[in-house]
Amino acid sequence: MSGPADVPKLFEGVRSGDRGALARAITLIESTRPDDGAAALRLLTMALPHSGNALRLGMTGIPGVGKSTLIDAFGRHAIDQGHRVAVLATDPSSQRSGGSILGDKTRMEELSRSDRAFIRPTPSSGLLGGVARRTRGSIVLCEAAGYDLVLVETVGVGQSELEVDRMTDLTLLLMIPGAGDELQGIKRGIMESADVIVLTKAAGPDPAMHRTARNALLNAIAFLPPRDSGRRPDVLLTDALTGSGVPELLRHVIELGTKDKASGYQQLRRQDQNVAWMHQAIREGLLERLVEDSALVERIDLLEGLVKRGETGPFQAANEVLERFRTGGAPRP
Amino acid sequence: MSGPADVPKLFEGVRSGDRGALARAITLIESTRPDDGAAALRLLTMALPHSGNALRLGMTGIPGVGKSTLIDAFGRHAIDQGHRVAVLATDPSSQRSGGSILGDKTRMEELSRSDRAFIRPTPSSGLLGGVARRTRGSIVLCEAAGYDLVLVETVGVGQSELEVDRMTDLTLLLMIPGAGDELQGIKRGIMESADVIVLTKAAGPDPAMHRTARNALLNAIAFLPPRDSGRRPDVLLTDALTGSGVPELLRHVIELGTKDKASGYQQLRRQDQNVAWMHQAIREGLLERLVEDSALVERIDLLEGLVKRGETGPFQAANEVLERFRTGGAPRP
Repeated sequence: MSGPADVPKLFEGVRSGDRGALARAITLIESTRPDDGAAALRLLTMALPHSGNALRLGMTGIPGVGKSTLIDAFGRHAIDQGHRVAVLATDPSSQRSGGSILGDKTRMEELSRSDRAFIRPTPSSGLLGGVARRTRGSIVLCEAAGYDLVLVETVGVGQSELEVDRMTDLTLLLMIPGAGDELQGIKRGIMESADVIVLTKAAGPDPAMHRTARNALLNAIAFLPPRDSGRRPDVLLTDALTGSGVPELLRHVIELGTKDKASGYQQLRRQDQNVAWMHQAIREGLLERLVEDSALVERIDLLEGLVKRGETGPFQAANEVLERFRTGGAPRP
Repeated sequence: MSGPADVPKLFEGVRSGDRGALARAITLIESTRPDDGAAALRLLTMALPHSGNALRLGMTGIPGVGKSTLIDAFGRHAIDQGHRVAVLATDPSSQRSGGSILGDKTRMEELSRSDRAFIRPTPSSGLLGGVARRTRGSIVLCEAAGYDLVLVETVGVGQSELEVDRMTDLTLLLMIPGAGDELQGIKRGIMESADVIVLTKAAGPDPAMHRTARNALLNAIAFLPPRDSGRRPDVLLTDALTGSGVPELLRHVIELGTKDKASGYQQLRRQDQNVAWMHQAIREGLLERLVEDSALVERIDLLEGLVKRGETGPFQAANEVLERFRTGGAPRP
């Protein structure tokens, strides 16, 4: 943002369905500039009462599994069915130099042409983290803008995928059979956080492999504890290129979403997620406040030099910074 | 730790090569109990001057790629060659219920029998994070205990693998050909942080596939910028079950390590890593200090209820906590 943001006007733009306003609103809450913080807080506070009406879907899977292609096909089909679709990418793996080798430009090309779709590419991650405020806040803004399907895409075989599970209603785990031994590869944490497992590229040269993989997965799932929803994930076969399985996938997730809403489970889950959001905002806010203290930032610069030259240990230096931060700049007596 | 730790005695045990003492020392620095913090800091400060003599290897790759099996074979071969090997696991994906479906007990079984090996399983991750102090501190302790090869294992297609790259001398990226389209799947960030790419399971039914994959990777690598070391990664073929390629892999990494030490690059890299360590310790320490403030923790409990019932927004609640923390408990006037 250049200059202070006109929050009420921005909010009005978001509510009216102006995609440019939505993009600027997300940019505001992604901003790490200290003076944008208060405006972002105001904007989110205004948007929150208008949020909550979308089905929030997390989509996760290792690189190469075909997430973008499936989201493209899935999103287009959902739009054909009357939905409005927002896609938020949280992919952390390209942070170093941005983008996959094949380039991010070709991703979700067809979907991005629809005026009932909003696609937000990976934010540049910066040093401060801030994924919580960004992605959770972006979901709230997309909902306030009237999108009723919000897809949060992440590369996941670890932390990031569990993060996404903590901010969506349903987590879709995308897999391809043949990527090594399925069972060996699947950690409990990942399987347990999946509401639906999607086997991609099912129209490939060996369809029997997909059926075999599906059976093996269902067998493995039977040994896992059910999710908090009381369910175990089903395994669906899709092929984004031919579109096969895509309508069934949409129907399946809408059905799960409707069930969870009716039973009250969705609300319980979102309440817990809001508490987690608070905790995450505390973690991120601590660091943001630290870097607002310019005397402390200067001291950190100096300590960096000492640590670099081996004149002090990294944890001793960190300890000093922590003491100074807590006591408002002065070292403790 | 039950009761206050006798740090000098513990340190002496670590230095004398007592594996039980080393395990207890790591437990101490992993502890999130506020009263263990000072002891952990003393221990690390004592150990730091005795550290730095190992070659630090990060090993990363998606689940199912065969990390544990390769580390087992690699570690045993290194011990045969006179090395002492420590293995630290940082796998974040099993945090929810711990362990893969096949169980962690069978991992690195043969290596764990050697008295020249030290294997530290995945720490329970806790809510506070603390990976920095834990893993970096564990490396320092293993080196002070005389291990000259420290392997840090992580599941990586994202954040965690870049973390490990920031605390080791060389990053080994493990891959299996056939897991989808290699090029599609490889994000620049991951490729760029690899010093060596290891294709695993090379003695499988289709050895030609490995050679083809190696060539495709080398072609892709040629398009990437070189690492800060000035090098691009080589691609090695290994098979942990037959042991083929394992001696070549050890020779290769030792050679790279020796070169980087002679050129001064290793020292530069470690200096930068120490600065990053300091920053990470600050981030983690902020949160640890917050939870030491019992009045604030009580207020957080109360806010959780308000957020849960929708009576306040998560970011508003977070904001209040941040204000109170900074002003030492009292809300800002």
